[in-house]
Order: sequence, then C-alpha cells, then structure tokens
Amino acid sequence: MFDREAMPRQVNIVEVGPRDGLQNEVAVPTAAKVELINALSKTGLRYIESASFVSPKWVPQMADSSEIMQQIDRQNGITYSALTPNLKGLENALAVNTDEVAVFGAASEQFSQRNINCSIDESLERFRPVIEQARAANIRVRGYVSCVLGCPYQGEVPLEDVTRVARQLIEMGCYEVSLGDTIGVGTPLQAARMVKAVLEVVPAHQLALHFHNTYGQALANILACLELGVNTIDSAVAGLGGCPYAKGASGNVATEDVVYMLNGMGIDTGVDLDALIRAGADICHHLGHGPRSQVALAELAKEG
Amino acid sequence: MFDREAMPRQVNIVEVGPRDGLQNEVAVPTAAKVELINALSKTGLRYIESASFVSPKWVPQMADSSEIMQQIDRQNGITYSALTPNLKGLENALAVNTDEVAVFGAASEQFSQRNINCSIDESLERFRPVIEQARAANIRVRGYVSCVLGCPYQGEVPLEDVTRVARQLIEMGCYEVSLGDTIGVGTPLQAARMVKAVLEVVPAHQLALHFHNTYGQALANILACLELGVNTIDSAVAGLGGCPYAKGASGNVATEDVVYMLNGMGIDTGVDLDALIRAGADICHHLGHGPRSQVALAELAKEG
Repeated sequence: MFDREAMPRQVNIVEVGPRDGLQNEVAVPTAAKVELINALSKTGLRYIESASFVSPKWVPQMADSSEIMQQIDRQNGITYSALTPNLKGLENALAVNTDEVAVFGAASEQFSQRNINCSIDESLERFRPVIEQARAANIRVRGYVSCVLGCPYQGEVPLEDVTRVARQLIEMGCYEVSLGDTIGVGTPLQAARMVKAVLEVVPAHQLALHFHNTYGQALANILACLELGVNTIDSAVAGLGGCPYAKGASGNVATEDVVYMLNGMGIDTGVDLDALIRAGADICHHLGHGPRSQVALAELAKEG
Repeated sequence: MFDREAMPRQVNIVEVGPRDGLQNEVAVPTAAKVELINALSKTGLRYIESASFVSPKWVPQMADSSEIMQQIDRQNGITYSALTPNLKGLENALAVNTDEVAVFGAASEQFSQRNINCSIDESLERFRPVIEQARAANIRVRGYVSCVLGCPYQGEVPLEDVTRVARQLIEMGCYEVSLGDTIGVGTPLQAARMVKAVLEVVPAHQLALHFHNTYGQALANILACLELGVNTIDSAVAGLGGCPYAKGASGNVATEDVVYMLNGMGIDTGVDLDALIRAGADICHHLGHGPRSQVALAELAKEG
C-alpha cells in the first residue's frame, strides 16, 4: 500500500486559472478577470498567477494584464504573480507591482522551436537577464518546464532534457521549478519516474507539479508524486484553459478536484472548497461552457 | 514511491457500459445496444455486462434484455452477463443463455431501504435462492456491494458493513464481489483502507473495484488499490451512465481512461483502445452527449 507517511501534511496550491487558464479560453472582459481574482482571493488560496506580460500580438487574451494587476483587491499573504518572458514584460510587470514573476521553458526541443522559435538553450539564455533583473528588484522568479511527460510535436521527451532544464532554471536563480505535463499524456509510473529523476538535481521543496488532465490522469499522477515529497501543485479553478492541442479536451487539472482529493487524505491546503466552486462557476458564465471540474459539476448538480 | 512490483501485471476489465451504464441513460433502441455489445466484443474485452432482468416497471431502459441476449453475436472467450435480482429474473436470464449473473447488495442500510425497500440482511436472504439456483444450473454469480465509500442517504458507511456484506456474498456462493463507490465520493487513502479491510475477509482474486468518477477520483482510487493486489476493475465505455444522484455529473469511470492508465504502467488488459473509443463514440450518438472519457475526448479532438 502506498505510503501516507511519506506524503506531505500540507500542500501549496498555485492557482493558475486566471493566467494559464484564461489565456486558452475566449477573451473575457477585464472586469470579469478582476472579479475572478478577487473571488479566488477569498478562498484561502495563497498564490494566484494573475497575468501575463507577453506581446498582445501573440496572446490577445492577456492584453489587459497591467489593468488587472492595478484593479484587483490585493489581500495580505497572497502572492499575485505574472508570466514575463522577456525584459519588456518584466518592466511592465514591475511597473504595476507584480509580486512574483515566472519564465517559461520547454523540455522538448521541438516544442521550443515551434512555440518560441528558438532552441531550449537559446530560450534559457533569453531568460537569464529577466531572472537577474527580477532578482535585482527583489522579485522572486518561478520557472516552468513544459512537455515533461511528452510533446505534441516530438512525442517522447528524454528524462535528461527535463532534468537539465529544471537544474538550469534553478541555477539561473529560479526559486522553484514547475514541471508541466503540457498535453496531459503522462501516467502515474511515468510521472513518478520523471519526478524522481528531477529530484536528483533539484530538491523537493523547489519543485511543483503542473499536470494537465487531458487524458484524465492528473489526479492519479499527482497521487503518485506526493509520496516523493513534492508539496506544491499547480491547478486551475474549474479546469480553466482546456487543451490548446485538442479542442474540447481538458487542460489544467481543476483546483476543486485536487483540493477534494487532498482534503479526503487529510492533507491541508487551506482552501475553502465551496468558495472555490462558486468562483469557478461564476467565471464559466463568461466562457460558454461549464466547469471542467468533476467536483464542481457534482456539487452544482446537487443544487439542481 | 508506490510499489510497481506489488501491482498486478494483468488486469481484467469488467465492461459494465451496456447494463450499469445504459440503465442510467435515456432509452436507446435495442439495435443500438446490440451494436454496442457487438462492437465491444471486438475490442479484446473478455467480460461484458450486457443486460438486466429486472421489472421493466422499475427500469424501463432494460425491458429488452431478452432480445439483447438473443440478438448479440457472441464471441468465444467472452462472458456476457446480466443482473438478476430475483428468481424470476434468473429464469428469464437462463432462458436466453446468459453466461453469468449478478446480484446487487448495498453496504448502506439506508440505501438498501430506499432502493430495494428492505434491510441489508433481508436483501441478502432474497439473493440466497437466486445464487443457489444459478449455481445448480452451473452459472457463476457475481456479487455487487454498493455504497462502499459513502451513501447518498446516510453519508458515511461503516467499514464493518462493507466487510460483512462482502463476506456474506462470498459465503453464499458468489465467486467475486465488486466493491462499488456508487456516488464516487471516495478518495485514495479511504479507498485503500476500505479494500484492505475487505481483504481480511475476502482474498484479492475474488474482489473487483467498481469506482465512479463523480468527483474525479476514480483513477487515483484505482491506482491506490492496485498495489493491494486487486486485479479486476469495473468500468463503462465512454463513462456511460452518469450519476443518478447528481444529474450532469459523471458516474462509472470510463473504460478508455482506465485502459490508458494501465497501458501507461505496462499493465496488460488485452483491450484495443482505439476500437474502444470508436465503440463509445458510436453509442454516444444515440445519447445526446459526448463520451464522458477524457481519453476519448482527447483522441476524438485530435481527429478534429
């Protein structure tokens, strides 16, 4: 039987719905995003990825990131972070008092080439000044690694590439690396094997799991990795985002479903599940689809 | 890390879509059910619960069970089973050469009272002659226990009630007991704890997991129990059935998602995933909703 004692007693949820989620949905009004972030701020979540300072040419859904960071009601104890792929983005993020920033690398060479038009190594070099300047401004930097369990272009991704990119992001100054199963193809043994490999170069307290539920595997994969000591999980309220590589399929694992599983195992997240379900249902009114959270669907169905 | 070595190398899938699934969907034409069972028969599945010989007054969706058992193209090596809650049902099942039958008990006293209008003990006594006559006719009997991880009426279900009903079904002559999380509320530690308790009275090779995905937990729960040596899993193609207690929510875990997870862990099911997805998509055309399988949704979305 799996080892409850090896699991963390407490898990940090990194809520990525307002950014990673909404950037893959139809554009919603700025006011609705602000309302979502404000609602999430009252659920007990302590980390909300709120905006992305990228070119609006590439991601028009995030063009209002400065307004969002200025309009939200910030709560004490909550980190409001943003994605900053370059110095221009960092500058914009700092101008609106973003608490933390993040850079986004890939473990897949082909994904890197197709997505950001450069090699993995080149992308890391581009992040170097971003990380340096953020740290000079006393801002912590989170690093993402995408495609850790598979790539939509090259298929398999060698473990060495995952560990190399994770290690380099830490060495460059990221305080944490989030391991993304971007297309949700991983299964539990594979997920645990990948995390074990990364643990050889990055300690557990500097790792986060960012698993997508495209193939329904996210919770099982998280379960398999909790025993390895990782205690930070990225998720999106209502499973916001869907899968950009398979229209109609799921993307980010739903925060509601993660919290429900952890609650049931006595692992504390500090999150009020009912308030979370409500926040997710409210933003979904703008999206033309229901929550992609089984927990939310079940609880909302009970209400009739 | 969880123990791959403790997991079975091979898992038996009990496909319950045509019965447990379709009985909780809008009625579909007999020909569509026959087509579904015939399609499933070509996927490598070796066990298909195909019909239910209950009063059509209670379950009108299953009124054509005799026709189904007579019209399907039976394949060698596949068991086509049916639910038979009473002697009349057993008689009807035997008249059309049903390979195996099943009886359905609850671990929840209140569920038993509300669902079949008698106590758990009374329900077991009613099954006794059914099991005896089936065995006299050389027909194996499977036993279901519902509400093993929670009940829509009484909430918590004592472990003692689960183990007692499971043991009694085996003692009465069932060759296998299927442990049903009927409302899908269980989480992994709770599921593993329940199965461990049952293993004290029934050996692993006589147990099956019948987990619903209403709260998105089914695969994680299955993962947590695989290590305990259980190697039979009930599931429904396309997640057929939904949840009768929460309209719009999920019910049976999707066979596609289970097979995908097991494939990824190198656990053999003998099932052709592509053929399974196709069979599920075809029946969903009659139901007015898409497959409730993340794997099916992802794969069908890729086709565009």
